[in-house]
Amino acid sequence: MTTATPAYTRLEALFARLANIEEALNILHWDMSAMMPQGGAGGRAAQLATLKTLHHELLTGSEVGNLLTEAQGEELHGWQIANLHEMRRDWVHASALPSSLVEEISHANSACEMTWRKARAASDFASVAPFLAEVLRLTREVAKIKSDALGVSPYDALLDQYEPGGRSAEIDVIFADLADFLPGFLAEVQARQKPAPQGPKGPFPVERQKALGLRIMEVLGFEFDHGRLDVSQHPFCGGNPDDVRITTRYDEADFMRSLMGVIHETGHALYERGLPDSWRGQPVGRARGMSIHESQSLLMEMQACRSRQFLAFAAPIMAETFGAKGQPGWDAETIYANNVRVNPGFIRVDADEVTYPAHVILRYRLEKALIAGELEVNDIPAAWNESFESLLGLKVPDDRLGCLQDIHWYDGAIGYFPTYTLGAMTAAQLFDAAKSAVPGLLTSIGKGDFRPLLSWLREHVHGQAANLSASELLASATGRPLDAAVFKAHLKARYLVA
Amino acid sequence: MTTATPAYTRLEALFARLANIEEALNILHWDMSAMMPQGGAGGRAAQLATLKTLHHELLTGSEVGNLLTEAQGEELHGWQIANLHEMRRDWVHASALPSSLVEEISHANSACEMTWRKARAASDFASVAPFLAEVLRLTREVAKIKSDALGVSPYDALLDQYEPGGRSAEIDVIFADLADFLPGFLAEVQARQKPAPQGPKGPFPVERQKALGLRIMEVLGFEFDHGRLDVSQHPFCGGNPDDVRITTRYDEADFMRSLMGVIHETGHALYERGLPDSWRGQPVGRARGMSIHESQSLLMEMQACRSRQFLAFAAPIMAETFGAKGQPGWDAETIYANNVRVNPGFIRVDADEVTYPAHVILRYRLEKALIAGELEVNDIPAAWNESFESLLGLKVPDDRLGCLQDIHWYDGAIGYFPTYTLGAMTAAQLFDAAKSAVPGLLTSIGKGDFRPLLSWLREHVHGQAANLSASELLASATGRPLDAAVFKAHLKARYLVA
Repeated sequence: MTTATPAYTRLEALFARLANIEEALNILHWDMSAMMPQGGAGGRAAQLATLKTLHHELLTGSEVGNLLTEAQGEELHGWQIANLHEMRRDWVHASALPSSLVEEISHANSACEMTWRKARAASDFASVAPFLAEVLRLTREVAKIKSDALGVSPYDALLDQYEPGGRSAEIDVIFADLADFLPGFLAEVQARQKPAPQGPKGPFPVERQKALGLRIMEVLGFEFDHGRLDVSQHPFCGGNPDDVRITTRYDEADFMRSLMGVIHETGHALYERGLPDSWRGQPVGRARGMSIHESQSLLMEMQACRSRQFLAFAAPIMAETFGAKGQPGWDAETIYANNVRVNPGFIRVDADEVTYPAHVILRYRLEKALIAGELEVNDIPAAWNESFESLLGLKVPDDRLGCLQDIHWYDGAIGYFPTYTLGAMTAAQLFDAAKSAVPGLLTSIGKGDFRPLLSWLREHVHGQAANLSASELLASATGRPLDAAVFKAHLKARYLVA
Repeated sequence: MTTATPAYTRLEALFARLANIEEALNILHWDMSAMMPQGGAGGRAAQLATLKTLHHELLTGSEVGNLLTEAQGEELHGWQIANLHEMRRDWVHASALPSSLVEEISHANSACEMTWRKARAASDFASVAPFLAEVLRLTREVAKIKSDALGVSPYDALLDQYEPGGRSAEIDVIFADLADFLPGFLAEVQARQKPAPQGPKGPFPVERQKALGLRIMEVLGFEFDHGRLDVSQHPFCGGNPDDVRITTRYDEADFMRSLMGVIHETGHALYERGLPDSWRGQPVGRARGMSIHESQSLLMEMQACRSRQFLAFAAPIMAETFGAKGQPGWDAETIYANNVRVNPGFIRVDADEVTYPAHVILRYRLEKALIAGELEVNDIPAAWNESFESLLGLKVPDDRLGCLQDIHWYDGAIGYFPTYTLGAMTAAQLFDAAKSAVPGLLTSIGKGDFRPLLSWLREHVHGQAANLSASELLASATGRPLDAAVFKAHLKARYLVA
């Protein structure tokens, strides 16, 4: 075997080495967010830069292109073929750009992001506009170069960094369907929605919130031998498959926000942990991409754990943890009602499940127009506000609540936004398929038994790693391509019927 | 400047890169001990191995030897000359050994260390002896090769890994002096020592112990913007100069042990933090070696913080922290008396200041004989027990309390032990010099003001980094070479006079 595929075997060794550097970087990033004292920032930046440069040098070494071509002619099987495909993708993304451009864009992103922090606080778009224009100019250049290398449109070349194989032509159709549906649906939901019942009253001590989070993580199947829960300003899931580090933050006035955040990150963590051991450290052994990753967090947060069944199971645990057994507002029905409120607002990260897609569709359309050269930086605020009103019926009062709210563009991340809503739709479709395939799934969840769900996900999603494209994976797991109808049916069932 | 020293300038860039890898490794090591869940061990080992290999490849790259030679002919000044000297030392240690031998010894060390854990628990030296024999065989080989490369004796070549420029001929003289002094001195101390007064009674809750440790760290000058205190099984000082990570462990029956441990590690931390910013990332900007490092921890733990003055300052803080104000056993004199007890025992890490050197001298003499081929593995237990009785007057009952107690040899660390006692003696000599140079030093310490001490250490020790050899540094700071008389005078003043 080894002698029959000398080039492929050498590539596997190289990518194993690269993966070890990536894993070290993952821990250093986690540490920076969760542990590092402020004074370590300068040194840490230098450590990260050195490791990233070494990684880049190894990946773009003179022999890699030849090895990839040679391996193409070797007799490979199954996952090896997919692995070679992923290796080439990594290599193309890394080697397509001249290093001068990589450096230029890295500086432009940093400068823009730093200016954006002040601009957002002051709601002063004009001050950051020239920096964003420079980021856009360079990102268009990157998109053009990668477009040639990958043979896809410039926007799709950017999208491919986050969503391998993603195509805007398909997203356009799906998002158009949703954009059509949402305004009317939202009006209907709002017309029928009763006033929120008074929920649990705080304060909710941090230590108890943490205990609750840990307990629910355990219920969901998080393995504490292979991971941790800590605190960071921006919650995330980091670390590595056998050492998954999730974070949250606590607000003593509202425990549900941290708890749902912990459930969300646990969904990401279970995916990482469920990647196949036998392909650990190889490109095909990694998570498939951002939409599938987000589907795993949202499947837990929005599908499984905002179900009546789960919240009926969890409500007494919540009351017990905060020593509030029998007090008003802690009954399952009140907890549920407060977890499925729909309330249009300006801020994406605060949005509910129904209005969230509108925030994303807006950003997706604008960033596509920016890359296509159909929109310039100075036109963003007006375009944003107009689009927001048409999708959500609200007039944006200032740019802080509008086009200045998210870090993404200002940090150079263009092509990322659609994966949030693709993830939400994928989550609905996977959960729907799991319910059909596993009789009594929601009954188990209502008993705090996530093993049937996790077992289905391990087989159909986690264990598939990057062997299939996101659409192949979804089709293989659910029997059909991504279909907005399933997501819409989920929303109707939760917000109109119940 | 840059153009006048092209080779040296390239070396500076290379070593800056190497330092960034070392700093990343330091954080990964800290994380492994203080944060990582058990299940991450396999992945972490792979990450560390990859970074170490990359480091080794960069340091032993084909051009480095030539650059070192070329730079030797360039016009360098002051610290640059010392920096080049340290670069060469790093390079010689890294490139002297064939990589096959490096790998062989790494495996032998791991196998021996794993067997040792069981052997120690069972007090079964015979079971680990063949593994230790293999470690010794390979270590002798390493010593021989490095001896040729460095032009020093085989044992000194090992010593040089921990104590750059250290020479056993000098240590022999100093240790002979001490070994001569200690048995009689110990007998005298024991004859005069009164029974220990009843000290504070526990339990001492972990949270309060931690609060006490943090408060005392602050008193000593630890900067929390540039460091942390956490928990690990084996306390250590890790991290990097602008992000120093110290650890401790807590015993609810005895808070003094953790507190003195925290003070010890804070001494290490202050040294790292005081290294000159302008040489950060260069070999000359690093700490000088293990004896100077240990001197900084012991200066805080044994000299400054076991003084009557400091303990009179700290006793009320201790009582207040544990809510024991006015309770018996918390007065300064009782706290002091319990901190200067002399009590010969079998275990080095539990030893007091007076008996500790005997533990070290024994190990130093045996390991020197092992490397010289004058002692074989099977002779260790008998030689250990005989030497122990002659130095400390106690019969070793079993090898668990004798030659199996320390990990060092079983993990391949031969040549390390003498630095503990060199550190203790250096600490005494530096503190003595600081007291002479800074009037009222102990009075300040008695008020919890460590700034005069820290300022003297910054100038004479920390800020010198690796610009001088350990003996040059000591001579420059104290006006004389390492002198056992100062250490002996310190012991007499504390244990016979007071």
